Amino acid sequence: MSNNQPTASLVIIGNEILSGRTEDKHLKYLADQLTSIGIKLKEVIVIPDIEEKIIEYINKFRVQYNYVLTTGGIGPTHDDVTTSAVARAFKVKLERNKQAVRMLEARYKEKNTKYHQDALKMADIPQNAQLILNPISGAPGFIIENVCVLAGIPSVMQAMFQYLKDHYLVHGSTIFNRTITIYKGESHVSSILEKVQNAFPILEVGSYPFIQDKKWCTQVVISGYDQANTQNAVKFLISSMEQHSIKFHEESK
Amino acid sequence: MSNNQPTASLVIIGNEILSGRTEDKHLKYLADQLTSIGIKLKEVIVIPDIEEKIIEYINKFRVQYNYVLTTGGIGPTHDDVTTSAVARAFKVKLERNKQAVRMLEARYKEKNTKYHQDALKMADIPQNAQLILNPISGAPGFIIENVCVLAGIPSVMQAMFQYLKDHYLVHGSTIFNRTITIYKGESHVSSILEKVQNAFPILEVGSYPFIQDKKWCTQVVISGYDQANTQNAVKFLISSMEQHSIKFHEESK
Repeated sequence: MSNNQPTASLVIIGNEILSGRTEDKHLKYLADQLTSIGIKLKEVIVIPDIEEKIIEYINKFRVQYNYVLTTGGIGPTHDDVTTSAVARAFKVKLERNKQAVRMLEARYKEKNTKYHQDALKMADIPQNAQLILNPISGAPGFIIENVCVLAGIPSVMQAMFQYLKDHYLVHGSTIFNRTITIYKGESHVSSILEKVQNAFPILEVGSYPFIQDKKWCTQVVISGYDQANTQNAVKFLISSMEQHSIKFHEESK
Repeated sequence: MSNNQPTASLVIIGNEILSGRTEDKHLKYLADQLTSIGIKLKEVIVIPDIEEKIIEYINKFRVQYNYVLTTGGIGPTHDDVTTSAVARAFKVKLERNKQAVRMLEARYKEKNTKYHQDALKMADIPQNAQLILNPISGAPGFIIENVCVLAGIPSVMQAMFQYLKDHYLVHGSTIFNRTITIYKGESHVSSILEKVQNAFPILEVGSYPFIQDKKWCTQVVISGYDQANTQNAVKFLISSMEQHSIKFHEESK
């Protein structure tokens, strides 16, 4: 199903997410956003603030997927190691980026706050990287080749992603999704679903069990690029349900 | 910091999480639970229902970490490919597990429900695997070597994890965490935090920015096995704050 869609991977960086201290807010937001612009999110890794781990996954994913997004670790403290790791992954140097310095200074001036010299660490960016604007707090993210480095604070990450979406990411084909709720457990319909999948191999036929009124039910999601084809698979599923007298509900489009 | 703690990795399997259809509920729960029993969660990967991907990460992680947990993909439908992938990763066959059949049949009898023959697919388990009880819906998870295969429905996954916690996982040393809230942005304290980290290299000194009353603040979390050592690092940080007249608040233990 991925021919018409650019692919993406996500590297979520932060000890605090692995320890449970902080609940991840990146995965769901970026999954929704990427899906909405026709980019297929293929893998997500969550790793600690360890440079070698960051380098490992950036170098693995950047050759596998059209885009790599990272979140976290671009602040000014000792545990912010993402920028340095990305520079090492690309074997380029960090340099104080003049445009980034101007962004930070403009932000502090606008807010009329004194800044500490160490804030300028956030203007140390890998050579030849393109900056990602940060309307929330000034300190930019950056893009180097196909790797987009975003902040870890959810509001800032989201603002940076909107910039990427508008200025950098190539949008792909829209996916058509149809959802059918079946009032039987998965086992009762698994052979039917397999037939639907085999008859429409280009589509994705997902089966998701849930409990309603203490009874097992199944939500089936049929997804594809071609609306007519997707609708034909839905019709095939529905006629099979009717044939077996299985109750279902087709969600409105 | 990991000498006294077993390590774990998590493989979250499911197209629906990568597409944004379903919000992941596994990462936060398992991060909290593992931390509470002294097991250090080191990496989490989210991948689609593709056997090759599952095999790749299971074989990568099972030699790197003490435990690999997987979630999702053990139901009876065509898109449930985890069990088959795990068997392939270990180069063992799937076989209909008699104990698993008894569990399923007992469950259906107890609930007085008819079951479809295809439900027994959930009793096809890799050879020599040990079953994980599922008090919610009968169909078991399983353990093969150091890989623990759990369901994708959050309530079932959680019940299976409680079984693992009580019967299988070796618990590690407790971590002591101390949290200090500093009423200044990270840049103002980054050099101090670096000194604390350098003075106590065995501890983890995490710095997390947040906004309060429109001002940037910093939450510092100092973590370690040795309570006295952790407390000494907190004292060192506090005396540095006082020296620089920076306002802070130490959270009660």
